[in-house]
Amino acid sequence: MFKRSFLKELAGKEGIGVRFLEEQLKRGRVVVPRNKKRKISKPVAIGEGCRIKVNTNIGTSTQKMSVDDELKKIKVAAESGTDTIMDLSVGGNLGRIRKQILKESCVAVGTVPVYEVAFDAERRGASFEKINFNDIMDVLKRQAESGVDFFTIHAGILKSFISAIKRRKRVGGIVSRGGAILARWMYVNKKENPFYENFDKILELAKEYNVTLSLGDALRPGAIADSTDDLQISELKVLGTLVKRCREAGVQVIVEGPGHIRLDEIAVNMILQKKLCDRAPFYVLGPLPTDIAAGYDHISASIGGAIASFYGADFLCVVTPAEHLRLPSLEDIRDGVIASKIAAHSVDVLRFKDEWKKDYQLSLYRARRNWEKLFPLTIDEKKARKYRKVKSNFTDMCTMCGKFCSLKIIEKCDLLK
Amino acid sequence: MFKRSFLKELAGKEGIGVRFLEEQLKRGRVVVPRNKKRKISKPVAIGEGCRIKVNTNIGTSTQKMSVDDELKKIKVAAESGTDTIMDLSVGGNLGRIRKQILKESCVAVGTVPVYEVAFDAERRGASFEKINFNDIMDVLKRQAESGVDFFTIHAGILKSFISAIKRRKRVGGIVSRGGAILARWMYVNKKENPFYENFDKILELAKEYNVTLSLGDALRPGAIADSTDDLQISELKVLGTLVKRCREAGVQVIVEGPGHIRLDEIAVNMILQKKLCDRAPFYVLGPLPTDIAAGYDHISASIGGAIASFYGADFLCVVTPAEHLRLPSLEDIRDGVIASKIAAHSVDVLRFKDEWKKDYQLSLYRARRNWEKLFPLTIDEKKARKYRKVKSNFTDMCTMCGKFCSLKIIEKCDLLK
Repeated sequence: MFKRSFLKELAGKEGIGVRFLEEQLKRGRVVVPRNKKRKISKPVAIGEGCRIKVNTNIGTSTQKMSVDDELKKIKVAAESGTDTIMDLSVGGNLGRIRKQILKESCVAVGTVPVYEVAFDAERRGASFEKINFNDIMDVLKRQAESGVDFFTIHAGILKSFISAIKRRKRVGGIVSRGGAILARWMYVNKKENPFYENFDKILELAKEYNVTLSLGDALRPGAIADSTDDLQISELKVLGTLVKRCREAGVQVIVEGPGHIRLDEIAVNMILQKKLCDRAPFYVLGPLPTDIAAGYDHISASIGGAIASFYGADFLCVVTPAEHLRLPSLEDIRDGVIASKIAAHSVDVLRFKDEWKKDYQLSLYRARRNWEKLFPLTIDEKKARKYRKVKSNFTDMCTMCGKFCSLKIIEKCDLLK
Repeated sequence: MFKRSFLKELAGKEGIGVRFLEEQLKRGRVVVPRNKKRKISKPVAIGEGCRIKVNTNIGTSTQKMSVDDELKKIKVAAESGTDTIMDLSVGGNLGRIRKQILKESCVAVGTVPVYEVAFDAERRGASFEKINFNDIMDVLKRQAESGVDFFTIHAGILKSFISAIKRRKRVGGIVSRGGAILARWMYVNKKENPFYENFDKILELAKEYNVTLSLGDALRPGAIADSTDDLQISELKVLGTLVKRCREAGVQVIVEGPGHIRLDEIAVNMILQKKLCDRAPFYVLGPLPTDIAAGYDHISASIGGAIASFYGADFLCVVTPAEHLRLPSLEDIRDGVIASKIAAHSVDVLRFKDEWKKDYQLSLYRARRNWEKLFPLTIDEKKARKYRKVKSNFTDMCTMCGKFCSLKIIEKCDLLK
């Protein structure tokens, strides 16, 4: 699937052996999202044995359509260390926006094609309730051809679930946009999910372009009261069968996961996914262990993301402070990416010597108040420098402890490494 | 120790039975910090079976001495939901500052008396290396008499540890200010820790004023490379013996804990403390699972704090974005308190019906986009409202999804609770 030289470079960046990477790729435990049509200057491997990766969602909405804003977000997200980008645009000229995003992004780009399918229908004056698989296939081909590296496909929500969804009456309802579109479509048309029914055709296309499939969790809980419910697990089981079909077809696949999850259920969610989906890479949207932190959901997500990563999640979707409230600003994007990176690093530091070294080295410098060597090792050098500088012009003193610096007090005792 | 009517009110606020509270207090598994000399309008119970509590550190440094700034911080911390305040002032007129803080604070106030002891010595032109127990006792009496509700006492770092500290050569050194002062004092004077040697006298005073003792962890790791090391555990064992002595003397006691802790060692740290200290309330300073997040340590602390709370921590010390860099601003205090509250709530929501109801109710409103009922349930109503308002004047639409709102799409399907 990939050239050895390419994999060698990738393995080098991960600090893992190339043979191990090849083996993991072969078994589907690791994927490298990368459309054949596109060159990515910063490709990444995602999955078991690799560093935890981070994705940032950007994209216009029907209320905010500036491409320039979204391109700036890509820049900020990349500077902050995102590993991939998802373009979730649903406003403006989607084709043109995507083209620019693919051009500007140094990292892999994913999309949720059903958005464009629904958007096209609405633009034609029709309703997304009337779409058929031809409409879907047109969009999939167009997007694959344009170079999209991974697709979120909501093929796991089935017609037979609709009655269960009605019975369940979830607290948070359906919070996946793609999931809602498909649930509504099946509810109105009384037909099977077209993504599921035509999954083989999607596989053919994905294979042709080496588009990685990200199996969307249409029924992810949108409230901790709904977490790990029968709907979520039913869909996960279907996703497990789809993983198998992807692998048989030679298509790279990852699985999307929740969402809002009670803290005490995060571990079990990770273990269940790995079990039911034969250790396919797990891409989690949060998870958020509380629903009440609107304005600070990047912090909830960092708690959930760290615990999830520890128990097996491979790929964290950035949640910004704007989640649940508005389209994120540039600052929101930065805060969100960094919060996810902290969660990821908190686990990577336990597993990768190079990550461990960062903390080790920084702490050695900190014990000596060697600020100039310390700053480049922090997660956001600019912010750390700015904080330290504000009203503090003391070469070896900070406004926090002033003269009573514990490190200075013991310095003369010969107690340091 | 406390009147029944007082405990009844406290138990009511916690949503626990008053008998259970009494039993927990008697066994020392819960404390209520409250100096006999002081009325607190918002007293709290801290420990097993109660909601996770949050403490905010404020106080002047030798570089920043404005009392007004610190009083403003108390206000912001209280608005953001702090349960206690610690005055760590080491600059200006400490007595006057403390008096004002005690007057302004509606919650319990703690101090680290050794700071004032060292400060007084320096003011006299002497070094803190020359202090003796009389100096310490003077400060303790003065502070108890002024109404301080809890003291951090670093009585667990012993003379015999000094050689081990030298041998160990920790990466992060000693990061407890009190711990560093005492380590240096013992190193220079070759005498036993005066807090340890005179612990009975401290107990007498604490008993007289009902000052709760918080046993400081002088040897808490300041780098994840040092976490759970022999020094930390040696001190914890001493703290366990001191807990016993406090209980025998009828003095309320809590134990302070780390610090910088590898994520995979957080659980074991909580279990060890509960075991070695006979389930005394555990007050953790973070913990931080990574050292590299300067500028964002409130986020690291919320990851560590949530995991710690889940495994038994009872009391979280707020870490602000300014940690390791400067004295916190008002905004830093708010961000820090809220991050800790999110960590605490993520665990409380699993244990307390009233907490669960908040998330449940908010999610019901969210599914109906009932913003006006949703906002008051968020952790920071002001911020949530501000975010939602920015460039978004759509009554039932937000800039995030615009027309493609999953909740609106499925509304007509009768799928909601």
